[in-house]
Amino acid sequence: MIKPTCNLLYLFFLFPLLMLSQNRLRDHGVQIGVLQPGKFNAITDVPGVQVGHLTLIKDENIRTGVTSILPHSGNIFQEKVPAAIYVGNGFGKLTGYTQVKELGNLETPIILTNTLSVPTAANALIGYTLNQPENENVRSVNAMVGETNDGYLNDIRGRHVTEKDVLQAIENVTSGPVTEGNVGAGTGTICFGFKGGIGTSSRVLPKKSGGYTVGVLVQTNFGGVLQVAGVEVGKKLGHYSNSFKYSPDGSCMMAVLTDAPLDARNLERLAKRAMLGLSRTGGIASNGSGDYVIAVSTAEACRVPYQSDDPIQTHPTLRNGAMTPLFLATIEATEEAILNSLFAGETMIGRDGHKIEALPKEKVLEMLKEAGKID
Amino acid sequence: MIKPTCNLLYLFFLFPLLMLSQNRLRDHGVQIGVLQPGKFNAITDVPGVQVGHLTLIKDENIRTGVTSILPHSGNIFQEKVPAAIYVGNGFGKLTGYTQVKELGNLETPIILTNTLSVPTAANALIGYTLNQPENENVRSVNAMVGETNDGYLNDIRGRHVTEKDVLQAIENVTSGPVTEGNVGAGTGTICFGFKGGIGTSSRVLPKKSGGYTVGVLVQTNFGGVLQVAGVEVGKKLGHYSNSFKYSPDGSCMMAVLTDAPLDARNLERLAKRAMLGLSRTGGIASNGSGDYVIAVSTAEACRVPYQSDDPIQTHPTLRNGAMTPLFLATIEATEEAILNSLFAGETMIGRDGHKIEALPKEKVLEMLKEAGKID
Amino acid sequence: MIKPTCNLLYLFFLFPLLMLSQNRLRDHGVQIGVLQPGKFNAITDVPGVQVGHLTLIKDENIRTGVTSILPHSGNIFQEKVPAAIYVGNGFGKLTGYTQVKELGNLETPIILTNTLSVPTAANALIGYTLNQPENENVRSVNAMVGETNDGYLNDIRGRHVTEKDVLQAIENVTSGPVTEGNVGAGTGTICFGFKGGIGTSSRVLPKKSGGYTVGVLVQTNFGGVLQVAGVEVGKKLGHYSNSFKYSPDGSCMMAVLTDAPLDARNLERLAKRAMLGLSRTGGIASNGSGDYVIAVSTAEACRVPYQSDDPIQTHPTLRNGAMTPLFLATIEATEEAILNSLFAGETMIGRDGHKIEALPKEKVLEMLKEAGKID
Amino acid sequence: MIKPTCNLLYLFFLFPLLMLSQNRLRDHGVQIGVLQPGKFNAITDVPGVQVGHLTLIKDENIRTGVTSILPHSGNIFQEKVPAAIYVGNGFGKLTGYTQVKELGNLETPIILTNTLSVPTAANALIGYTLNQPENENVRSVNAMVGETNDGYLNDIRGRHVTEKDVLQAIENVTSGPVTEGNVGAGTGTICFGFKGGIGTSSRVLPKKSGGYTVGVLVQTNFGGVLQVAGVEVGKKLGHYSNSFKYSPDGSCMMAVLTDAPLDARNLERLAKRAMLGLSRTGGIASNGSGDYVIAVSTAEACRVPYQSDDPIQTHPTLRNGAMTPLFLATIEATEEAILNSLFAGETMIGRDGHKIEALPKEKVLEMLKEAGKID
Repeated sequence: MIKPTCNLLYLFFLFPLLMLSQNRLRDHGVQIGVLQPGKFNAITDVPGVQVGHLTLIKDENIRTGVTSILPHSGNIFQEKVPAAIYVGNGFGKLTGYTQVKELGNLETPIILTNTLSVPTAANALIGYTLNQPENENVRSVNAMVGETNDGYLNDIRGRHVTEKDVLQAIENVTSGPVTEGNVGAGTGTICFGFKGGIGTSSRVLPKKSGGYTVGVLVQTNFGGVLQVAGVEVGKKLGHYSNSFKYSPDGSCMMAVLTDAPLDARNLERLAKRAMLGLSRTGGIASNGSGDYVIAVSTAEACRVPYQSDDPIQTHPTLRNGAMTPLFLATIEATEEAILNSLFAGETMIGRDGHKIEALPKEKVLEMLKEAGKID
Repeated sequence: MIKPTCNLLYLFFLFPLLMLSQNRLRDHGVQIGVLQPGKFNAITDVPGVQVGHLTLIKDENIRTGVTSILPHSGNIFQEKVPAAIYVGNGFGKLTGYTQVKELGNLETPIILTNTLSVPTAANALIGYTLNQPENENVRSVNAMVGETNDGYLNDIRGRHVTEKDVLQAIENVTSGPVTEGNVGAGTGTICFGFKGGIGTSSRVLPKKSGGYTVGVLVQTNFGGVLQVAGVEVGKKLGHYSNSFKYSPDGSCMMAVLTDAPLDARNLERLAKRAMLGLSRTGGIASNGSGDYVIAVSTAEACRVPYQSDDPIQTHPTLRNGAMTPLFLATIEATEEAILNSLFAGETMIGRDGHKIEALPKEKVLEMLKEAGKID
Repeated sequence: MIKPTCNLLYLFFLFPLLMLSQNRLRDHGVQIGVLQPGKFNAITDVPGVQVGHLTLIKDENIRTGVTSILPHSGNIFQEKVPAAIYVGNGFGKLTGYTQVKELGNLETPIILTNTLSVPTAANALIGYTLNQPENENVRSVNAMVGETNDGYLNDIRGRHVTEKDVLQAIENVTSGPVTEGNVGAGTGTICFGFKGGIGTSSRVLPKKSGGYTVGVLVQTNFGGVLQVAGVEVGKKLGHYSNSFKYSPDGSCMMAVLTDAPLDARNLERLAKRAMLGLSRTGGIASNGSGDYVIAVSTAEACRVPYQSDDPIQTHPTLRNGAMTPLFLATIEATEEAILNSLFAGETMIGRDGHKIEALPKEKVLEMLKEAGKID
Repeated sequence: MIKPTCNLLYLFFLFPLLMLSQNRLRDHGVQIGVLQPGKFNAITDVPGVQVGHLTLIKDENIRTGVTSILPHSGNIFQEKVPAAIYVGNGFGKLTGYTQVKELGNLETPIILTNTLSVPTAANALIGYTLNQPENENVRSVNAMVGETNDGYLNDIRGRHVTEKDVLQAIENVTSGPVTEGNVGAGTGTICFGFKGGIGTSSRVLPKKSGGYTVGVLVQTNFGGVLQVAGVEVGKKLGHYSNSFKYSPDGSCMMAVLTDAPLDARNLERLAKRAMLGLSRTGGIASNGSGDYVIAVSTAEACRVPYQSDDPIQTHPTLRNGAMTPLFLATIEATEEAILNSLFAGETMIGRDGHKIEALPKEKVLEMLKEAGKID
């Protein structure tokens, strides 16, 4: 009787790893940058961070979902985390921006979903927060919801995401490997004209640079001229936005979490670097793009209690001069997270029969070999 | 049979004027600033602008509502208006900020409501926009919703505003006089420890300065040390935030509309001046305040069509050097709009028996007389 | 033989106090706001802060000068101070903005002078810094220089301020009373059409709010419709910008120093409040105005050493929730500092015989009496 | 007698082309991006734009200079140009930022020089402007000066650049080919640990996208992990900042000029894209970097006259929806301009015998061949 359970457990832990091992860029021997990733090469390498997906694939027209990121497993409203948001290009509907900017912290999980479901997700986050037992007197909640527009494959006008779906995505969080590709908020998204979705990656700094971990998760839905590890894939395939074969518009939501002790000012600087990572994949932050980066420090010593008897807080924070390695880590992890989303994305048919092909991985890997990126 | 209808219509038009004539500061002979107001001394003096309220007073605990502002009577998504938002203090949940900043225009009506009903209002605006016949292919909507927190008088956690309420507030729009005080989004708000609410005012520039109209509407819910026309009412009454008799927190939402042809950059500069007007009432933009200013140009020649065959737009806009009179107008109208909200606010009992008194107008007018502000 | 020295010392200490006692608004019984000023009602009430002036009045056309502010008496480059700058209206030439914004700290004294002498002052600050013995390997200096335009009274095109003058202004720093009016960088400036100049004021918070001191120094050179303690002086005198009797343009430089332990984010919020103080004097931040606020925390525990073996710094900082009293203090001190500059300013004839009258203090005081502001 | 002159003229025109033909990346068959460059592949491809250098190589320690960019050949103060500045990382001393941000235009030539010579250059620009005959009543000038720190090779503390040098750099402007590498403001700069300097490139949009030209000029002095056309040169050479063989700090000044009719808001968006171009060369915007982008529209129809009888200006401007091709052009031209600076830079020995090697071009070209970037 126990054995099957064991096997199931075995599968439970192993399956994601197996699945990922076939999809991810690094598994093919391609290294992005000069720093090393963490154990899972995922945002969950940052201690305490968990990710959950809720995927909505129904009928012929519904191709959307929700992804949630928890910076820690406690009550985030009661134990806020230092945070900043950088707007790479603001053609987007992310909500929660101005309060994070003013107060320097985040008080809810981060939710990603489709453009027109942002208010539903915000309502769900408000409900989630109000209903936590410690929050019974809370009357103000700054919900953090980001989005990209999956309206080509998904019947976005139908607004099929429910508050229950959002709460389920929060419920679904786990640490460890993160499923990528056509899942959660990335279910119906398009990247460089190919099927995009969720991607993730991480970097661990050498000890002499503090040993901190930077984890990135992206919801990719944007365009430009695709480059994979510097190889001009989009150009070689004749498949890029300027050729008008597809619109470069869309958006990229990026979450950058780190256990480095950072204040909001240096988190904003960190957030800016994610756009540099996006650029290295060939992204151009087109006019119609909503490119946002949410950066959060999960360092316990930097938590901001909702209430405190002491008007003074004493946080350790990294000096400006120690930021550069974190900048590099953010750039590398963002680049790789975006590429991972493309390698995990699978061909999808959706609304009105619209079809988006997966990245032709075999061809791309061949190009990489020719360019000497794979031995 | 017709007569009563006539009379009712008569009342319908006249009543607000009568009501207003008793409540407003200027009716008592107090002049704020050196410029002249428009016909209604209201945001609706700006040609084409309409305002609607939906007031929710139910049971003992529900004291909230919705206020809508239409910059013009057409399809706003199809005919966007140049816009900018200035954040005086960002402890607030206004949604729609980053896209207005990036693209320089507004594509929905402006909705004001309570803090926790922002997502509901955003959902309503999305539905409103998607359902307009010309918008059948629209898949992206940047809903503009501002808020203040009415949680002292209102059961804000109950989130009693519905999408239908929001749509009704849009339906309710009229030009002409604007009801002030305990209505719409101002139903349950508190200002300087007294009953605040909705207030409005306008200024018309002299012809030599262009003859433009600036109209301001505010939802007042903030603190400081009240000054009325420069008279230190809060100090004289011993009723101000620093005395800990009430929290100075809360927020002020301000909408500044003008028919002057302005681009987004100069609209942002205009928006900043509304905070100077707030200051003159004794406001201090306390830590917990969400003070936001939305500035919009309604000039027809500046409209931004959703789609256009011409990649070039040729808008007339005011030169930097012509902005100063508009700045002055904004400051004066904001100051007077806030004071109008206080003069219109009436004592209210709400959630858990909480009671907020109206401004003691008789006393205040006496102080103004003593100070020589009233002949 | 000793006696004369004693007398001289006596005069040295007493004279400024005597002089000030005749000029300052508060000496006439007018109280701005609800908080109490510090001992000198000056920026120098903030422990360790020193101010120096160098006044250039030569021939018929030179009416300018330099004012310096030292946040502490040590080597500021080696012991940087947390800082932020808020731009109320950016028609100005302040230099040093972007680095303060990025790094959150200030590394030179603050210099104020006339518009066209900013580069000369910056050169002087660079020289000052390079020549300090501990700085012998320094190759990068972010000079902080603010300015207003004294070109109506001063031959500003002649650029008469020399680097030596700037260094002398630094040399001249003292703690204790600060000379106001036609001195230093305020020598040739105009405020509300009257003679402006340097003004200063301070506030000390009650112990329950932390007991911190906020000190403000202003260089006033701007317009609007003058209000003194809420009394509409400009309107009553028919002397305001809109009447085209003078240009409302010009600028206001404001320095806000405090011993409260603040990080750059909360310093920027503090800086924003100085504009609210400016507004209460009738300022409108006209198009041509360069209104800048430099906010600095002098708290020793918050200093940022130029070099450190530890990549982590552990600073105590005030929580967001403790900021409101400091906001109020900044507003009040800025308002009073501006008014002090007007009460200290004296009629001046300058370039090409241009004459600017002092504020007609007798008339103004009478107005204040009539309004009940003076018993 | 005429012949030699002819020959000289011949050389005058041909020599730069010949020289450039040996140095530039594109001459080796490497194409960056998918758009085509203009005639000179230089910022001067934008009609009317001129560039001038003044190179200071003296004794053993002086390795610095000045580069000037004129957006048009008229009086820039009288005919201002729409402009915006984006701060990629603000550890820098660029002056002129806040006024450009507020007013949306530029009123002087752009000067680039070394960090500690910014005030000298600003003084020169003020003098230059005051002395133009039409400007005899001008009393306020917003000098635009950018910089990077050449203090490793240059005796920067000696501040050897004079105002005369700056004026000479303005005098030296020419249209046509632009000298790159160790010239002007790039004389002593270092890029990715190799000799950097001045670089330039341009892109011309297809007619269907408006046919506009975007020209970029850079002063390269920063670090990261060098990539040339996507090939990881830095990593292969084991020569990158993380290996601590050199500091990644330093800065990159970027000027983006275009004849597309753009307002300040869209110019700021354009400016942001230059950072994406920088990223593609391996730049990481390290903590110590002052990465600034100045974007200017040279379109004649968008000029802003200093004075005008008409308070209204009617400028044609590109709609948001037409911006994407310009974004792509900016990214590509910036990437190529930076690479051009490296290909033109030559080994230099400077201050205290410090030596910086040129990029090992032969090796790099071989790597490019191996990666299939060169046929």
